[in-house]
Amino acid sequence: MKKVAVLLGSDSDWPVVRAACAQLDAFGIPYEAHIMSAHRTPLEVVNFSQNARKNDFGVIICAAGMAAHLAGVVAAYTTLPVIGIPMKGGAMDGLDALLATAQMPSGIPVATVALNGAKNAAILAAQILAVEDKTLASWLESARKDMALQIEEKDAALQGEI
Amino acid sequence: MKKVAVLLGSDSDWPVVRAACAQLDAFGIPYEAHIMSAHRTPLEVVNFSQNARKNDFGVIICAAGMAAHLAGVVAAYTTLPVIGIPMKGGAMDGLDALLATAQMPSGIPVATVALNGAKNAAILAAQILAVEDKTLASWLESARKDMALQIEEKDAALQGEI
Amino acid sequence: MKKVAVLLGSDSDWPVVRAACAQLDAFGIPYEAHIMSAHRTPLEVVNFSQNARKNDFGVIICAAGMAAHLAGVVAAYTTLPVIGIPMKGGAMDGLDALLATAQMPSGIPVATVALNGAKNAAILAAQILAVEDKTLASWLESARKDMALQIEEKDAALQGEI
Amino acid sequence: MKKVAVLLGSDSDWPVVRAACAQLDAFGIPYEAHIMSAHRTPLEVVNFSQNARKNDFGVIICAAGMAAHLAGVVAAYTTLPVIGIPMKGGAMDGLDALLATAQMPSGIPVATVALNGAKNAAILAAQILAVEDKTLASWLESARKDMALQIEEKDAALQGEI
Amino acid sequence: MKKVAVLLGSDSDWPVVRAACAQLDAFGIPYEAHIMSAHRTPLEVVNFSQNARKNDFGVIICAAGMAAHLAGVVAAYTTLPVIGIPMKGGAMDGLDALLATAQMPSGIPVATVALNGAKNAAILAAQILAVEDKTLASWLESARKDMALQIEEKDAALQGEI
Amino acid sequence: MKKVAVLLGSDSDWPVVRAACAQLDAFGIPYEAHIMSAHRTPLEVVNFSQNARKNDFGVIICAAGMAAHLAGVVAAYTTLPVIGIPMKGGAMDGLDALLATAQMPSGIPVATVALNGAKNAAILAAQILAVEDKTLASWLESARKDMALQIEEKDAALQGEI
Amino acid sequence: MKKVAVLLGSDSDWPVVRAACAQLDAFGIPYEAHIMSAHRTPLEVVNFSQNARKNDFGVIICAAGMAAHLAGVVAAYTTLPVIGIPMKGGAMDGLDALLATAQMPSGIPVATVALNGAKNAAILAAQILAVEDKTLASWLESARKDMALQIEEKDAALQGEI
Amino acid sequence: MKKVAVLLGSDSDWPVVRAACAQLDAFGIPYEAHIMSAHRTPLEVVNFSQNARKNDFGVIICAAGMAAHLAGVVAAYTTLPVIGIPMKGGAMDGLDALLATAQMPSGIPVATVALNGAKNAAILAAQILAVEDKTLASWLESARKDMALQIEEKDAALQGEI
Repeated sequence: MKKVAVLLGSDSDWPVVRAACAQLDAFGIPYEAHIMSAHRTPLEVVNFSQNARKNDFGVIICAAGMAAHLAGVVAAYTTLPVIGIPMKGGAMDGLDALLATAQMPSGIPVATVALNGAKNAAILAAQILAVEDKTLASWLESARKDMALQIEEKDAALQGEI
Repeated sequence: MKKVAVLLGSDSDWPVVRAACAQLDAFGIPYEAHIMSAHRTPLEVVNFSQNARKNDFGVIICAAGMAAHLAGVVAAYTTLPVIGIPMKGGAMDGLDALLATAQMPSGIPVATVALNGAKNAAILAAQILAVEDKTLASWLESARKDMALQIEEKDAALQGEI
Repeated sequence: MKKVAVLLGSDSDWPVVRAACAQLDAFGIPYEAHIMSAHRTPLEVVNFSQNARKNDFGVIICAAGMAAHLAGVVAAYTTLPVIGIPMKGGAMDGLDALLATAQMPSGIPVATVALNGAKNAAILAAQILAVEDKTLASWLESARKDMALQIEEKDAALQGEI
Repeated sequence: MKKVAVLLGSDSDWPVVRAACAQLDAFGIPYEAHIMSAHRTPLEVVNFSQNARKNDFGVIICAAGMAAHLAGVVAAYTTLPVIGIPMKGGAMDGLDALLATAQMPSGIPVATVALNGAKNAAILAAQILAVEDKTLASWLESARKDMALQIEEKDAALQGEI
Repeated sequence: MKKVAVLLGSDSDWPVVRAACAQLDAFGIPYEAHIMSAHRTPLEVVNFSQNARKNDFGVIICAAGMAAHLAGVVAAYTTLPVIGIPMKGGAMDGLDALLATAQMPSGIPVATVALNGAKNAAILAAQILAVEDKTLASWLESARKDMALQIEEKDAALQGEI
Repeated sequence: MKKVAVLLGSDSDWPVVRAACAQLDAFGIPYEAHIMSAHRTPLEVVNFSQNARKNDFGVIICAAGMAAHLAGVVAAYTTLPVIGIPMKGGAMDGLDALLATAQMPSGIPVATVALNGAKNAAILAAQILAVEDKTLASWLESARKDMALQIEEKDAALQGEI
Repeated sequence: MKKVAVLLGSDSDWPVVRAACAQLDAFGIPYEAHIMSAHRTPLEVVNFSQNARKNDFGVIICAAGMAAHLAGVVAAYTTLPVIGIPMKGGAMDGLDALLATAQMPSGIPVATVALNGAKNAAILAAQILAVEDKTLASWLESARKDMALQIEEKDAALQGEI
Repeated sequence: MKKVAVLLGSDSDWPVVRAACAQLDAFGIPYEAHIMSAHRTPLEVVNFSQNARKNDFGVIICAAGMAAHLAGVVAAYTTLPVIGIPMKGGAMDGLDALLATAQMPSGIPVATVALNGAKNAAILAAQILAVEDKTLASWLESARKDMALQIEEKDAALQGEI
């Protein structure tokens, strides 16, 4: 199976982003996680992105806050799908990061998930890898059913509480 | 090759969304386009989404404006990757659609592109299909190079103009 | 009397939404409360909404945050009045949920109340049921008067404090 | 059948708000429309609102823009359900009106619809009146089906166009 | 000297609004403070506003949050200058209250101060009363000079700290 | 009677701001209008503001857009009431100007009116001058009644149209 | 004198950005203008930025819209001062570009000017070069005085018009 | 070497702004820090700004929140480069201060950094002084390399943690 890369613009993003790694572990998807900054270590980012496909990565997840350029910069150097996690903590509850991640120019898309949406970034990466992988697709279906069961259990619990 | 579905919440979105179809045509990716509303034809949406994987779709692109629920509703019924195009035209230059598309709850991601980002949605779909398709990946690389050449030609033209 | 349904997209909404149930209790209006997610248990939502009128519900209250699709999805499957409570906690103090609840397309309205406005959702439900119910209407008038008295008592207390 | 009141804060709102009246006509629901300003003719508003229930109104629709106080002021004088239509045209594409209509204090709800959502306000009014009116409820169901058919026809037309 | 009225939409606003009263006390300006709600005690508001000029008030300060209608409603019933204090605590850090206070329709102005700007509301009231009152004007000048001195003292203290 | 000053940050504001002058003319209030920029002719602004009270001005109206500093700068040099008109045309429909005008620090209030609210600025100035001027106060009352009559006429016209 | 670089993310920015070049011409400051995209020609941007200081540039002006990464990417490869012009045209009147330009992480500043502020970017570049250049500084002072004179002439013209 | 001025609108800004002074100390750049308010001590601001160039300052950093006029007012009285630090704490997470600092009119630029971006303001000041100072330029390069090393160390630490 192709690997997933999980890139963080800053180590301060790790407490949120580790949920992406946990989710990838749960699906048995191999991944690497790196702290790499579009502004502070730009050449590492260029180097990693240019070689990602040949290094057997299939999807790259990038988490960054504020002016959040990481996902866009990575996307400029690879044609692999790049998923951006805008981080809360800058201006307007993270609206700065959401716009800086999603509002990419024509030609260079970034697949943007919700603010701090680390778990969803990992699920989206799994969905991408599952397009041609029936086993992973069936795991995704199972996870979906588990999730529904949890909601139903919570609803049952609520009936006892009212 | 897997097909791409292009779903529009309203026929008024077509003038923007047709750019996605044009881009898919340019890559030679098979697709279907449908007008289908999360609110006005909800059961068609359920039916289409539940059967999308078995009907040989690999990615679903959904365009919707305002409270923009289409991508999220589709994503609730399939584990295929779902790409959301938030449409301008509602409140705050489309911020309503951007937030309604991107801010999905944990478990059900939508890969959100820029406001009116129809072309980028198609490129992202191609990137997803190209993870396991070397021919398509090389076409993506070529398109990237053409894009760079166009910028360089425009820069050359600017030098004549200054 | 018709029943009111109170639907929550997540059990984490309950501490806020229980105020709606308390208010319905105060008016003696029968209700059911359920945790039900537009994205995680979508078929339960479809099933509940399609049968709500015949199951003797008169109004459906839906609370959801972030991309807040619950009220809109319910409204797509019933012609009963649907009241949406946008929950704070996502982006921009809940602006995401407010826009995702209020900005519905033509044909499928959602009656949106204030952010976290659980009590007001219940009062609005009561006002709807009271259109043809004189007893309930007179209870609403009494509650209104009590509310005014409380303000007047607080004003009297303030006079002592200045 | 109870009547619906359609109140406009300014005659400049009429080109948008007339869609509400057209929709009420289509459902055969009796209504009155009045220009009445919370700020410029406040006593008319008080008088109208205080007497609305006894004058056989069942729902009051209020359209206003900018600081949009009309719906809230009406709601302060009646316990009938009040529907607010926030009008575009002020600051931030009408966000001022949306917030001024929806963000009501505890005790006095306003059922807020989308910006310029005149047609939806009328449909919501019809849904409220239909809670105890089976004929009107069946008309609402028919209108819903017509709407779905229109979408399906547009989808069929799109298939010819691609 | 004319009196100033300080009206609060809710007793929860008092911890902020008391700063207005303290400032009026400091200037020796007579005032009355009342809790009075545009929505919950609307007739008290009408009555107070209609009689304010003849009851020897010169300026009315109104504090309210969220859909913040109080200042606008008071302004509809009097031609005295009305100062609005938008209160934080609703959506988007109080942007809802700021817009609902400032964005008044043509003909009925509200003099809006900063979010939670209770002290400034009182100073503005004093400035209004000082237009024809030389003693009060000279007190305002003195207060201005004291304020400048405080800044200069803080700057001097900073020099010691660097 | 004291004069009103109407200051414009730029001649491009005149088409909107002239409505303030027209309203002052209608009330027979003497005024001066000047183009004066907080950034481009700052010393003229200082000089004008420092001498405004002794030059027999009673109120100063300032119109400015974007970073809209004019009203705040004037307010720093005078204790006369300063009314700020935030002008549309910058970012976010004028939200930049609204916040830059209203969000003044403690000690230096600006009485902010609606975006482009030139007419209301003039009415507010008149209300301030009318606190101690019964004739002007009665004119304000008359203008208020005329305004109500216009609404009533428009309502009558609407009845013919429906 | 050091040169100024004027970089545009897209040729569509030229109609706005040419005002920067015109201003640099007016000051007699040498410059180069290039179309260069952080996303579409990223290696050109890296190359240009890494060599800018040794190629005798003193300041780099970057104009970009939407997710506006150009200035930040350039700033990552040089320690020259980088001025960012956020372009209108994306979401929320350019708020996306403003935040993406200004909200840079610690360590890599971008000197952000107003939306579409091409002329001001050039003046800021001139101010930077004038820190050690008395001739240029005196030209800046002259330009400032001319600007003041223009305002005064416009004010004189207004006096004739009132 | 020219000095840097660090001006604070309020002593409450010092805990954030001191990071600018610390950074200037680290680079060995001489500076003065002063509390000086555009509104409360306006003449001190005028005096300081008018004499800044002749008093051997090369750059002026201004920190202010809310309606944040300080940087703009200073820029009106000097042609030295002025850097504005918008402070969080007003409305919408500091969006008020960001817009009031960045959205300057044509002719008078302010170099705006991120919200609370005190350290970046100092680095930008150093970059400006380094345009003609090779020693300072090489220190900036060193600091940049240290910063990259820190990221790389954090990445190495993360590898141990996963």
